[in-house]
Amino acid sequence: MGSLGAVAGWGLLDYKTEKYVLTRNWRVGALQRLFQLGVVTYVLGWALLAKKGYQEWDLDPQISVITKLKGVSVTQIKELGNRLWDVADFVKPPQGENVFFLVTNFLVTPTQVQGRCPEHPSVPLANCWADEDCPEGETGTHSHGIKTGQCVVFNSTHRTCEIQGWCPVENSTLSTRPLLIQAENFTLLIKNTVTFSKFKFSKTNSLDTWDAAYFKQCRYDPLSSPYCPVFRIADIVTAAGGDFEDLALTGGAVSIRVHWDCNLDTGGSDCRPQYSFQLQERSYNFRTASHWWEAPGVEARSLLKLYGIRFDILVTGQAGKFGLIPTAITVGTGAAWLGVITFLCDLLLLYVDREGHFYWRTKYEEAKAPKATANLSWTKPVFTPTSPAVQMS
Amino acid sequence: MGSLGAVAGWGLLDYKTEKYVLTRNWRVGALQRLFQLGVVTYVLGWALLAKKGYQEWDLDPQISVITKLKGVSVTQIKELGNRLWDVADFVKPPQGENVFFLVTNFLVTPTQVQGRCPEHPSVPLANCWADEDCPEGETGTHSHGIKTGQCVVFNSTHRTCEIQGWCPVENSTLSTRPLLIQAENFTLLIKNTVTFSKFKFSKTNSLDTWDAAYFKQCRYDPLSSPYCPVFRIADIVTAAGGDFEDLALTGGAVSIRVHWDCNLDTGGSDCRPQYSFQLQERSYNFRTASHWWEAPGVEARSLLKLYGIRFDILVTGQAGKFGLIPTAITVGTGAAWLGVITFLCDLLLLYVDREGHFYWRTKYEEAKAPKATANLSWTKPVFTPTSPAVQMS
Amino acid sequence: MGSLGAVAGWGLLDYKTEKYVLTRNWRVGALQRLFQLGVVTYVLGWALLAKKGYQEWDLDPQISVITKLKGVSVTQIKELGNRLWDVADFVKPPQGENVFFLVTNFLVTPTQVQGRCPEHPSVPLANCWADEDCPEGETGTHSHGIKTGQCVVFNSTHRTCEIQGWCPVENSTLSTRPLLIQAENFTLLIKNTVTFSKFKFSKTNSLDTWDAAYFKQCRYDPLSSPYCPVFRIADIVTAAGGDFEDLALTGGAVSIRVHWDCNLDTGGSDCRPQYSFQLQERSYNFRTASHWWEAPGVEARSLLKLYGIRFDILVTGQAGKFGLIPTAITVGTGAAWLGVITFLCDLLLLYVDREGHFYWRTKYEEAKAPKATANLSWTKPVFTPTSPAVQMS
Repeated sequence: MGSLGAVAGWGLLDYKTEKYVLTRNWRVGALQRLFQLGVVTYVLGWALLAKKGYQEWDLDPQISVITKLKGVSVTQIKELGNRLWDVADFVKPPQGENVFFLVTNFLVTPTQVQGRCPEHPSVPLANCWADEDCPEGETGTHSHGIKTGQCVVFNSTHRTCEIQGWCPVENSTLSTRPLLIQAENFTLLIKNTVTFSKFKFSKTNSLDTWDAAYFKQCRYDPLSSPYCPVFRIADIVTAAGGDFEDLALTGGAVSIRVHWDCNLDTGGSDCRPQYSFQLQERSYNFRTASHWWEAPGVEARSLLKLYGIRFDILVTGQAGKFGLIPTAITVGTGAAWLGVITFLCDLLLLYVDREGHFYWRTKYEEAKAPKATANLSWTKPVFTPTSPAVQMS
Repeated sequence: MGSLGAVAGWGLLDYKTEKYVLTRNWRVGALQRLFQLGVVTYVLGWALLAKKGYQEWDLDPQISVITKLKGVSVTQIKELGNRLWDVADFVKPPQGENVFFLVTNFLVTPTQVQGRCPEHPSVPLANCWADEDCPEGETGTHSHGIKTGQCVVFNSTHRTCEIQGWCPVENSTLSTRPLLIQAENFTLLIKNTVTFSKFKFSKTNSLDTWDAAYFKQCRYDPLSSPYCPVFRIADIVTAAGGDFEDLALTGGAVSIRVHWDCNLDTGGSDCRPQYSFQLQERSYNFRTASHWWEAPGVEARSLLKLYGIRFDILVTGQAGKFGLIPTAITVGTGAAWLGVITFLCDLLLLYVDREGHFYWRTKYEEAKAPKATANLSWTKPVFTPTSPAVQMS
Repeated sequence: MGSLGAVAGWGLLDYKTEKYVLTRNWRVGALQRLFQLGVVTYVLGWALLAKKGYQEWDLDPQISVITKLKGVSVTQIKELGNRLWDVADFVKPPQGENVFFLVTNFLVTPTQVQGRCPEHPSVPLANCWADEDCPEGETGTHSHGIKTGQCVVFNSTHRTCEIQGWCPVENSTLSTRPLLIQAENFTLLIKNTVTFSKFKFSKTNSLDTWDAAYFKQCRYDPLSSPYCPVFRIADIVTAAGGDFEDLALTGGAVSIRVHWDCNLDTGGSDCRPQYSFQLQERSYNFRTASHWWEAPGVEARSLLKLYGIRFDILVTGQAGKFGLIPTAITVGTGAAWLGVITFLCDLLLLYVDREGHFYWRTKYEEAKAPKATANLSWTKPVFTPTSPAVQMS
């Protein structure tokens, strides 16, 4: 093609820039400036600075949590006098995972063996007057076994259906005072490491060069020592919005959230955990049993219904660091919006403004292909500027 | 610079808009309109509406899971008659975590002490004719101890190497009928809370204002009650693609996925869990032992090989909410693509169209610096519009 | 509006393209080409190819981990001769979760009952000369109980305060040689499944069609068999930067990271786990107790202080697959940057270049509304191109 040669002749280094039509329409001009200011403010102020749009993020750190509870608790039991419990008795599982359970109250049924015994009166449909009230083989969700079809004496005031199952059945009445009320003074140490593998950055909540001893003696307090990883149990429960004594009685679940918000452009020195607490459940208990052989072939179990506080340690984190691609996207998008603004202002100028007709002809210069039209029809307008084609020359 | 003064004089409010060349080339025009339509369809229809490109996302919710199994199971053992098992006997760990194990079959070796006894014949290299077949100190992956170097009588049909280890050794033959076949009727309650901390939004799968009682009585069913958090064990296994009886015999692992897909622009009312189930393993067992002191210095253990179904509850979630930045990026990118389209159409117009030569000269108006060229060579083309080539050169 | 009719008359298929001013300013032109090359290189080379900017990502896979330890260990205890331990004795919890603990050393206090006994001399403030040294009711963080107020004989060399608590108290001295030194030869099998639900893609680290037997016999080695899911314990500890014998003595915590980086555009065949190891803690122990009834009303416990290695298996993963939206954003952003470049070059051309004044007038063609200005003042400049100021006004 002929023009190609010409292009090549001029070389690639010719600079081409859009030709603009300049109008003194200050209304549209002011609007455009306003919009442009908005876009620049958005890009610089909001997207780049406030939202750190120049950073790429790692939202999914690797997390390692080790917990350790410490403390001793004394319980006064009527028959037994003072009894002392320590952590080995009342943390399950003991090995320091991120979800653990602190027993605060329990109901023990010391020795159960498979056999026949009267059902507990509190179970629905357990009370009876005669054998007919106890259909053989019947069972239920709250039942402790399968009815044998007989109605037997439970105690001096109740007659209940006899069942086949673990006997004797569990007594449903729980002490009204938590046995481990002193667990409120137990302390919980949380060792938490987060690793942002995208940035090869790792941080631990309990280690700092400036004061290693601090983390051994401190107690967490949201105001005076917000970075201390040692928490008093009652403080956690209170901060979560619960009452320790209530929760100790009926059990409950508390989540401890550790959030890391790290800006690695500043070297990560301000990358510190924020702790928050939330009450998840106001009731929590489960049963567990330990089994042994009373005699060859006679299995016995000790049934424990444990009430207590379950702690879930949830760690979340995000780290941001300067990245070329997010910066390019944020700024590039802003640039594209400047084009959108011109388009919108053009709509105003061309279709709303009273002089729109005139501006239209100035902005859009018609190029009539010479072959399709006579040379005259092409050149004529040059001399008649009121016809849009004139502007071209 | 001279022009700067002029610019300042005109003020910042002059409106500048790109000058366009208008051609009546309908082929390129139609193509451009088609492309533009494509971009607008993509931006509005796909990126904004279908993919909710106007939303920012929180893909990493904080998750809290509490599980509770309920049920009783009766096993008929030949020697012992009916035996009843409950959840306390067969859920490990008992405290309701998101990964737990339901025992359905087991192999018990009641009392083992450290000592010497014949190896089990099923172990490779255990069978022997003479002491020479049992090299002293040898052991293996499946061995139960270390060979003492002697070949002894195991039973009336087998002679095996004597080992040093926990004695007697475990009998490898498992009951061919799962002991806890009735575990299929156990029910599993999953209490799951997700918190999207980015949007400060939290939701629980088992609480709803309109009907609190519903969640206590319901049973999950994918069609009739897809939001009920109480699952029958056999239903889970079947939905995961397994057969409960098979899995109960040999063990297995099933994952329960809870997925939350929340659109917070609609207030989160449609933010409900979707449950799905997947069979992970068709075989699962492990050994555990409880230790005690038979006599001072004589440790004994009861060895249990447990078969059963392991449940993993995996919670994932995403929440979207209108965000300025994603909207700006989606729309801004669309605007930038409109520029790309014009560029592509220009290529067609200038280098493929037969009239390309002419369009080229109209589109690119040469500005010759007055110093470098005579005034005449600059002004001349103005008067000879019929000769486009002149203007260009 | 008049012009609208004209527009409609020409139809929607007219093609409009920006009019450009072409200058032979090679300095700015070269700069523009350089910048354009930079943008194209960035978009194609960096954002699209290197960073796979054409892919959308799933960074949050569902993860299922099952672990299984195998091995037997022989311990030589002075009084008892050879003793053999197996996995059932020393993995807690036994059921193969992603966090587990391998006991390598322990301190056992076989039978403790609630009572009064002398405190251990190693506890601070335990040693005494007289009853006055032992204030009644006092306790401490490291104390084993509550002081009764009496000073009693501990052994032939020490007198300590009597306490109320679990008696006798734990002896703090630990064997200097780990009891389970042979645990280094235990093998750990990790079965790990990741599911990228966004792409409905799932993969397991221990299954492959080409060689199922391989995964049963292999041993992980970073060089020769990097995909084998069976790890020797001592290899893990060494790779994590620890010494097995040290860690076995005092305990420790090791994290095993499994990372999946999957490119699903290539079918996911190169989607394989990468294993890495990190030492988290150089000291790790906890206490656990098993309780039983010595006699009716007399609870006894066996206290174990367990030292060992805690393994955390952390699985992370990301999968990328071609997506229309990320591609559109990456390329669209690049296109927007080309506009930014032209803007920057224009600044150079118009305000820095010596001929800026001239270029300015060529680039910005003034459109005076015909009502405001006489036709003459509009047309005149066309004939006097040598006087730029005139043209502008």
